[in-house]
Amino acid sequence: MQIKILQNLLEANEEKAQEVRDFLNQKHIFMVNLISSPGSGKTTLLEKTLPILKQKFRVAVIEGDVETERDAKRLDLYQVPVSLINTKGACHLESVSIEKALLAFDLDQLDLIFVENVGNLVCPAEFDIGEHAKVAMLSVPEGDDKPLKYPLLFQEASLTILNKIDLLKYTDFDKTRFYDDLERVNPNLSVIELSCKTNEGIDAWVDWLDKRRIASLNRLG
Amino acid sequence: MQIKILQNLLEANEEKAQEVRDFLNQKHIFMVNLISSPGSGKTTLLEKTLPILKQKFRVAVIEGDVETERDAKRLDLYQVPVSLINTKGACHLESVSIEKALLAFDLDQLDLIFVENVGNLVCPAEFDIGEHAKVAMLSVPEGDDKPLKYPLLFQEASLTILNKIDLLKYTDFDKTRFYDDLERVNPNLSVIELSCKTNEGIDAWVDWLDKRRIASLNRLG
Repeated sequence: MQIKILQNLLEANEEKAQEVRDFLNQKHIFMVNLISSPGSGKTTLLEKTLPILKQKFRVAVIEGDVETERDAKRLDLYQVPVSLINTKGACHLESVSIEKALLAFDLDQLDLIFVENVGNLVCPAEFDIGEHAKVAMLSVPEGDDKPLKYPLLFQEASLTILNKIDLLKYTDFDKTRFYDDLERVNPNLSVIELSCKTNEGIDAWVDWLDKRRIASLNRLG
Repeated sequence: MQIKILQNLLEANEEKAQEVRDFLNQKHIFMVNLISSPGSGKTTLLEKTLPILKQKFRVAVIEGDVETERDAKRLDLYQVPVSLINTKGACHLESVSIEKALLAFDLDQLDLIFVENVGNLVCPAEFDIGEHAKVAMLSVPEGDDKPLKYPLLFQEASLTILNKIDLLKYTDFDKTRFYDDLERVNPNLSVIELSCKTNEGIDAWVDWLDKRRIASLNRLG
């Protein structure tokens, strides 16, 4: 019975997610769901990305956190609309919260929405929130063994960002093993190596977003 | 109704956890629940700790992972009993799995059991698994802002290990902010700063385990 109820919850979430996506499609908004462990650098990447993207797109952020408005405040500086969801203990975002968070925006004035999910490599991968692409972020100090140990996220993602590559020389991270494992989990997954310290990879990331957004709009015809 | 069922699940988990703890107490076994994000260094800490502890105690490890037996295999080298729980997607361990994992051991031949929980800073904090102490591990590259953003774990823990302090000089980690926030979340929490690279803090950790184990046994009278 517990399994049946979980099934119903997941189905309800997916139905709502599809509604959210349909609605975003009508508005020609591209939405990215950014997922990683706590401290991999999701907020810092947004801090680096927003000033560049703002020159080209109308951008907003939905910020998911268990507690505090710290990350939302960090992003406030970049003068884009930010909608905060405090999950109060819950370990992932669901589509029903995204629908509510979207109401805070003027959706006729947006091209691109980032959702920064709760810091967690496990649960957020299971929940479609109506995004067009899941981006999995992993940072070098977390270790090269994560794709095999947490495969679902890397199977669901359209892109993996390998962050904090400036720390490669101070850690035992084995890039060969990382790419081999990733290939086993999801052979079609693109990877961008990135550092918010040196800015390496930022251009490739902005370029990926740009192309992916256009591809998504083109599919709508 | 969903909330009611979750409540029942949590209550059932706690009841079973108390049974596990009572059973361990009968056997004079001290059990530690090690919790952190993926890649904070739980397995590496065990690799450093087991050779030292083995000289003094009879030790075993319960290894919780979403997938793979990689971490369990890493610990096999240290010739202590290891019992693996693959949660197949679940984001935390529960007491019912611990009870089963304990059956793999000869419990009359053990003094100390480490449980390496699933890599996740959110969900494992909610589930009592019958341990005597929760140890929260955070690594420097994850950032100083985690105690306030994920408060439950730091409230529940008896000790925080700040790991990878060898990376302090390459990151923006602010120790003052970290300790201030931790004080707000849990003023009684001990902290050990540690590096598995330089071995700094390993002695303090072994010492903490020793004292804490004795205190736990003394409470039983």
